[in-house]
Amino acid sequence: MAKYQFAKRVEGIQPSAIKELLALGADPEVISFGGGYPDPDLFPLDKLSGVYQEVILEEGKQALQYSTTEGLPALREKIIKRMAHIGIECTMDEVMMISGGQQGLDLVSKLFINEGDAIICESPTFLGALLSFKPYGPKFVSVPLEADGISIDHLEAALKENPNTKFIYTIPEFQNPTGVTMSLEKRKALLSLASQHNVLILEDSPYRELRYEGDVLPSIKSLDTEGRVIHLGSFSKILCPGLRLGWVVAPAEVIGKISMLKLASDTQNSTLNMHAVNRFMDKYDIDSHIEVLKQTYKRKKDLMVENMRTSFPDAVQYTNPEGGLFSWITFPERVDTVKLMRETLAEAKVAYVPGLSFFPTKVENNHCRINYSYMPDEKIEFGIQAIGRIVQNYFK
Amino acid sequence: MAKYQFAKRVEGIQPSAIKELLALGADPEVISFGGGYPDPDLFPLDKLSGVYQEVILEEGKQALQYSTTEGLPALREKIIKRMAHIGIECTMDEVMMISGGQQGLDLVSKLFINEGDAIICESPTFLGALLSFKPYGPKFVSVPLEADGISIDHLEAALKENPNTKFIYTIPEFQNPTGVTMSLEKRKALLSLASQHNVLILEDSPYRELRYEGDVLPSIKSLDTEGRVIHLGSFSKILCPGLRLGWVVAPAEVIGKISMLKLASDTQNSTLNMHAVNRFMDKYDIDSHIEVLKQTYKRKKDLMVENMRTSFPDAVQYTNPEGGLFSWITFPERVDTVKLMRETLAEAKVAYVPGLSFFPTKVENNHCRINYSYMPDEKIEFGIQAIGRIVQNYFK
Repeated sequence: MAKYQFAKRVEGIQPSAIKELLALGADPEVISFGGGYPDPDLFPLDKLSGVYQEVILEEGKQALQYSTTEGLPALREKIIKRMAHIGIECTMDEVMMISGGQQGLDLVSKLFINEGDAIICESPTFLGALLSFKPYGPKFVSVPLEADGISIDHLEAALKENPNTKFIYTIPEFQNPTGVTMSLEKRKALLSLASQHNVLILEDSPYRELRYEGDVLPSIKSLDTEGRVIHLGSFSKILCPGLRLGWVVAPAEVIGKISMLKLASDTQNSTLNMHAVNRFMDKYDIDSHIEVLKQTYKRKKDLMVENMRTSFPDAVQYTNPEGGLFSWITFPERVDTVKLMRETLAEAKVAYVPGLSFFPTKVENNHCRINYSYMPDEKIEFGIQAIGRIVQNYFK
Repeated sequence: MAKYQFAKRVEGIQPSAIKELLALGADPEVISFGGGYPDPDLFPLDKLSGVYQEVILEEGKQALQYSTTEGLPALREKIIKRMAHIGIECTMDEVMMISGGQQGLDLVSKLFINEGDAIICESPTFLGALLSFKPYGPKFVSVPLEADGISIDHLEAALKENPNTKFIYTIPEFQNPTGVTMSLEKRKALLSLASQHNVLILEDSPYRELRYEGDVLPSIKSLDTEGRVIHLGSFSKILCPGLRLGWVVAPAEVIGKISMLKLASDTQNSTLNMHAVNRFMDKYDIDSHIEVLKQTYKRKKDLMVENMRTSFPDAVQYTNPEGGLFSWITFPERVDTVKLMRETLAEAKVAYVPGLSFFPTKVENNHCRINYSYMPDEKIEFGIQAIGRIVQNYFK
């Protein structure tokens, strides 16, 4: 039999927690706070059904054919307008479509990371980003995340210690996994430090439009005067994930190279899905749709936080996010959340994501990420109360 | 302003001919024999329109949501059955969905190629494959392509000279760009050599089902008893490319790792497109659809070959493929096909792909790839006659 000699870059890449949890989320029996699934009851089924029918019948010869790697111009024009609304001025050669924000993480890594280059990440940070950076062999540098975003003092030290840093990866709004939002002061300080050290910032922004409390803050890209920020956006959370449509905004020189790498990676996005979303936005007001999402997610978040308040021992802490899909629970250090989840699954069929996967370097075992967008209200109540009941055993 | 320090792997990656030609193909004024576009008049618009409508209304909550990285099980089961029909026995953990065959080329490269590893390619070969291999830093080794497939003598020599070969890349049926099909004898010899030298074979098979003449030959994967062949298939040419749906068949150990790399690269394929193709295949006989494609493409191919026969000087050679989408024209060495195409574009708005892009190493300038699936009959006649008329100037 053939003996496989895999490339060095995949050594140590193991089946990930995300993968198993995405699978768990598909089991209708499990109360899953695991994945970052939007609420499927909010998908605009009738509208999308009509849109697909029209697109295929009226322009199917183009919509089912190959297209350009950068993506449908009419859709990119709409994204340019949406970006302008949040203060990001960009032109057609500065924006392109990608297969969800995840592909942006991969292509930016492929474009910039040489083996051994430092990548600075918030700690904790999005597991999917760590997975996409890793095959390119970076040195992960962790900077603690505080209640108002990345620690600027630690960031400054990390930049001094790592002159080979390529970029700083951040999710400034309603961060995955913590729900934390970076303050305006920190956004400015981050940009200033990036400029001093000539590093880039990769701003991952899939949740930005799902703010249901607090003041809107400028995106980091909108504050950038030096072409230093690469901004990722996505339709996954504001429309639906099953179309795999996201976008990247960056200086034209960077977009040109990302486009060549995308051509080599998968040719282009689904032409049909781009035509359909473009027509959806022509026919309907996507902002009204987003308003409905925000109302629902705020209600679910409030319900979850209220149940955590009443069900959890006082020593258990959790974030109260102003938007997005996640809260982050911190238990006393003696609580191992992998072990706890085995108990919540066995006793109540309740799942979340144990926090250990989200740490770029030094792992902590007493946290978990908990999603409130996917489950219906009664399961949020039941599930949180079950976790609270089971964790009480650790306090006896 | 920021100064960009790109990774070493993208040095020397330039905007490709394919990219510009895909753009040209979108210009309705140009008679384009350039891209590998299927005939859009053959897209089953009514059927697909109904299928999308049903899928979204009846199972939209699943079909628009995240799913698993390996892809929709019901669709993979259908692919397993189709593979069995061509002698490839595989199970659910040996097949997964990818974003078109192109993503298979990227993920297999990412999984296997260390910098400096040798990759053996037919010369000429598919430009998109060269583009996807290149960022991983391989040494390209060219083996001449003959009328019945790869030169076995040269392959044996190449394997001896390059003990660090990771895989042999081949398109055994109606090769891109030449239209050449590998004989059964050579398939067996190729497998035997791969086994002797413990290298893998990457069998790229997007055109296999578009055979309209000659005898069906077993796929290389169907002859493989050692888990040595990775097989790529695609819906792009048998249904439509705008859905970005392909598949990879490989031993479970390899699929497991490709799946982890796909998760990191783009999470998963479009759930909606997978549901739609699955339902299309439930409701309709895709083989009847393929029969219609084959009849049309045979007619177009015959028309093109007949026009090349009557319009081209005798010293110009061209292949007469038994299937697929392409013929390969070889002019006398003094004809530079880049220069010739400038003339055919200026004088008659006729485009093709100059052959130089398809050579992994030593470039030849007197060939071109010519596609006959995309253009309507009258444009095939006009375009080929125009090329014939213009190239006559080289023979005066």
